[in-house]
Amino acid sequence: MLTNPVLEAMKKRKSIRSYTSEQPSDEVLNAIAAAGQQAPFAAQLGSLLLKRDVKKNPFKAPWLFTVCIDLHRMETIMKARGWSRKMSDLGALILGVQDAAYVAENMVIAAESLGLGSCYLGATPMYAKTIIDDYGLPPKVFPLVQLTMGYPAEAAAVRPRYPMGFTLFEDRYPQFTTEEIARAMRVMDDGYLAQDYYRSHNAMIPLADGSEETFTYGDYSWTEHISRKLGQWGEDPSGLMNALRACGFFLDEPGTGEAA
Amino acid sequence: MLTNPVLEAMKKRKSIRSYTSEQPSDEVLNAIAAAGQQAPFAAQLGSLLLKRDVKKNPFKAPWLFTVCIDLHRMETIMKARGWSRKMSDLGALILGVQDAAYVAENMVIAAESLGLGSCYLGATPMYAKTIIDDYGLPPKVFPLVQLTMGYPAEAAAVRPRYPMGFTLFEDRYPQFTTEEIARAMRVMDDGYLAQDYYRSHNAMIPLADGSEETFTYGDYSWTEHISRKLGQWGEDPSGLMNALRACGFFLDEPGTGEAA
Repeated sequence: MLTNPVLEAMKKRKSIRSYTSEQPSDEVLNAIAAAGQQAPFAAQLGSLLLKRDVKKNPFKAPWLFTVCIDLHRMETIMKARGWSRKMSDLGALILGVQDAAYVAENMVIAAESLGLGSCYLGATPMYAKTIIDDYGLPPKVFPLVQLTMGYPAEAAAVRPRYPMGFTLFEDRYPQFTTEEIARAMRVMDDGYLAQDYYRSHNAMIPLADGSEETFTYGDYSWTEHISRKLGQWGEDPSGLMNALRACGFFLDEPGTGEAA
Repeated sequence: MLTNPVLEAMKKRKSIRSYTSEQPSDEVLNAIAAAGQQAPFAAQLGSLLLKRDVKKNPFKAPWLFTVCIDLHRMETIMKARGWSRKMSDLGALILGVQDAAYVAENMVIAAESLGLGSCYLGATPMYAKTIIDDYGLPPKVFPLVQLTMGYPAEAAAVRPRYPMGFTLFEDRYPQFTTEEIARAMRVMDDGYLAQDYYRSHNAMIPLADGSEETFTYGDYSWTEHISRKLGQWGEDPSGLMNALRACGFFLDEPGTGEAA
């Protein structure tokens, strides 16, 4: 397999949930933020909030970034040019999620290359109202995902991934065979079990319907865990829809940009 | 400013729209796809379609990737475990866009590190129906963004970005001053003008309301261009909503996963 420092950084990255108290330098901050900013964009719709308050950080990391989809800044510029936004919130959201995610991922890999660790916090949109208050967000800024960052205080293992043939499909999307599915599940489950991941994180998700638990940490692994997440959580889209609305994003309406 | 090969690759990357006819090796393909697959995930919801057909590639690049949000594969695994998805399509979409975007961005930077260039094609969702047919996509797979890739046949310049103070906000989202807005606009506009970008790409967007053009390629630049995009395009969200529905994503409904 080919290798170089970039591929190495990507291969080595894993989520870090324990950090040293060392405050990384402003030079490191600038390098990581600049790497994020240099990500490809449709319309530079990503912006970054930073909080350096270990006490308010979920993993006591020195940095907490909140990566936002920022239509407010875009509309400010459009206004200065005599334009108002017509593009729908849904259209701008789909572009904006990508702009913001590319910024975030560049930062994660840049951090890895500088010896820092990071962890994405996927539940961020559910805390939109708190984040609006904390940072004084204007309308049309949606907090997509948070990122803890700092120097790692744990030696986490790289987590397994599906086999390549279960991810990269040439010319046609395949009809998965029973054996291919079983093999992909085995790779994931055996991989996490070998690392004793769920036991060491005490991360088994309880059965919500009250039925008896049939798994132990000896056999509870990734495919069961992810099935319990997607099979039990977030059934009602109104929580997320309300979070979007609280940030001024109305997905089923035409563009709602401020008048110029 | 700190530097290393990872930061350098991110700093040097720019969209490439002209490619040599050289077919990159399968070793290079595997390295780039593996780098993408190694991206952080919420639920491994990103999957990759590949077409190696220069004639069907918008920039005659040797590779066209279509990066998808793949709930079908996830549900296949859940079914094998006796689960069906409850999480709403909106919730899964917000997680899935991130999973898919992190894969894509890792691939872009990995490609850069191996001497390849790439370009995101942001209009991909509007071609959902064609892509479903071309690749035989099952329901619950949404083509988010395409990526052309190959060895560059042009020496494109790195495009400008907002000043850092217009992107990274510590503790509070700022109230932009008129001068800050003007400066950010100047950085972007002067930067693209210095590269003669819009003239050399013949990329001026016409005024849709039929009013007289007041710009020339001597002063038409990024802030006017992006204003015309967001100020004229995509007002009706139903095109995108229909593309999502064609792929089996219903944003305003509770989870619609197949029954186990």
